Amino acid sequence: MQQLSIIKIGGNIIDNEPALQSFLKDFASIQGKKILVHGGGKLATRIAGAMGIEQQMVDGRRITDAETLKIVTMVYAGYINKNLVAQLQSYNCNAIGLSGADGNVIQSHKRGSDSSIGKAGLDYGFVGDVDSVNSTLLKTLLDAGFSVVLSPITHDKNGQLLNTNADTIAQETAKACSSLYDTVLIYSFEKAGVLLNVDDDTSVIKNIYPENYLQLKSEQKIFAGMLPKLDNAFAAIDNGVSKVIIGKAEKLQELIAGISGTTITASPILETDEEA
Amino acid sequence: MQQLSIIKIGGNIIDNEPALQSFLKDFASIQGKKILVHGGGKLATRIAGAMGIEQQMVDGRRITDAETLKIVTMVYAGYINKNLVAQLQSYNCNAIGLSGADGNVIQSHKRGSDSSIGKAGLDYGFVGDVDSVNSTLLKTLLDAGFSVVLSPITHDKNGQLLNTNADTIAQETAKACSSLYDTVLIYSFEKAGVLLNVDDDTSVIKNIYPENYLQLKSEQKIFAGMLPKLDNAFAAIDNGVSKVIIGKAEKLQELIAGISGTTITASPILETDEEA
Repeated sequence: MQQLSIIKIGGNIIDNEPALQSFLKDFASIQGKKILVHGGGKLATRIAGAMGIEQQMVDGRRITDAETLKIVTMVYAGYINKNLVAQLQSYNCNAIGLSGADGNVIQSHKRGSDSSIGKAGLDYGFVGDVDSVNSTLLKTLLDAGFSVVLSPITHDKNGQLLNTNADTIAQETAKACSSLYDTVLIYSFEKAGVLLNVDDDTSVIKNIYPENYLQLKSEQKIFAGMLPKLDNAFAAIDNGVSKVIIGKAEKLQELIAGISGTTITASPILETDEEA
Repeated sequence: MQQLSIIKIGGNIIDNEPALQSFLKDFASIQGKKILVHGGGKLATRIAGAMGIEQQMVDGRRITDAETLKIVTMVYAGYINKNLVAQLQSYNCNAIGLSGADGNVIQSHKRGSDSSIGKAGLDYGFVGDVDSVNSTLLKTLLDAGFSVVLSPITHDKNGQLLNTNADTIAQETAKACSSLYDTVLIYSFEKAGVLLNVDDDTSVIKNIYPENYLQLKSEQKIFAGMLPKLDNAFAAIDNGVSKVIIGKAEKLQELIAGISGTTITASPILETDEEA
């Protein structure tokens, strides 16, 4: 099976112009098929501020009212997505940017429309939970030589756009593509990987697999905030994704080569002689 | 050859929600391959106003400075494009929205970067003049069953997005596709077609072809503002487009059927017995 790299970047790299350019050059140079999933950045908050639209945040999550949806659609699916694509084109990467509505590539439903409203009875507004990823369209584009850039705006097939978590989009896309490609999912992150000591970037755990994950958890050696990310990584692996890599966007080439960051796998990576 | 319909809509229909929904239903019901090209609407001006960015207009053209480019990229390639796509999806039209940067589908250069700055020595800012349309990508998508929705934002392949006239995008796309499809170009318009009397919507000239165009012009029977549109229509026909139709977006099905609007052709349309 051909390899597919799915790389998720967040706002921290989008807002840092020199780091972003360096990342995009690295992304363009990746051999083989690739998908970039991006989140937002500070621009949405800045524009909302300029327009006098108050941003409601609950537990670090943006509440997406109708005006905020308008802004995130403009900024994520418009400004950020098209600038990433244009810059990748300048590095000779034939990128094509899509929202979930385009070609019905990611269909979702409004959170709370299926059961209770949010986890704590909270109405998150126009937020989408992913139902399906159209891997046929992605394969058509990837096989035609395009690299796909996905923005975190999806739709419900009834004409409603929905703000959607970019980590989830990356994960669901990786799962959906795993029967078609040897799929590697890379989460870029502000830290060098999963750390034994959150204040020490050299304390990266190189490989996490089910057995040592249980042990690390029972010994409470992993920062609690990382556990949902790792649970999601194992869920992706259980659904056919070959490996999940977590590390710094600035080290994309090293992450892909497996010499930087934390690699999450179904079974321990056997160190080769070269690495030993 | 299979037929391809390329339909351009402007701000007047985008800003009129009931008319837009009716148009999109009609568009979704068009048999065969189709491309929608959209312009902007009042939203860009409204957002610029809310953000305190002054819009400079010269001869009805927006001067696109860096801040204005940011806004039109957000509004045209983001908000409008993705809402059109999501609404078409709800009408079971498998639409995919692209800017010119996506898949390098429309490459342009900054106006003035090739020769003099504008026609009258005027710097239009980040405005693009189209160099090429990638009909191979369009064919890949159309043949895979997608309808393409093009926003009027292009790029120069050096990482710069550029604001581009939607009429020109429609025309250049039609020309580029005319060797692959029997291509019909439809300009939606606030009037019922090209009129003999601008105040009388029933005075539509049904068919304009080179001979009667010369006569109509010499007799000054066509409103001067229409002449550039008609010259462009004939340029498209000279470059392989089968016909150009000008009329109301609200009558899309009748325009396509040839029973409404003005049809511009290389030679006179012979009336059939049914029509006579």
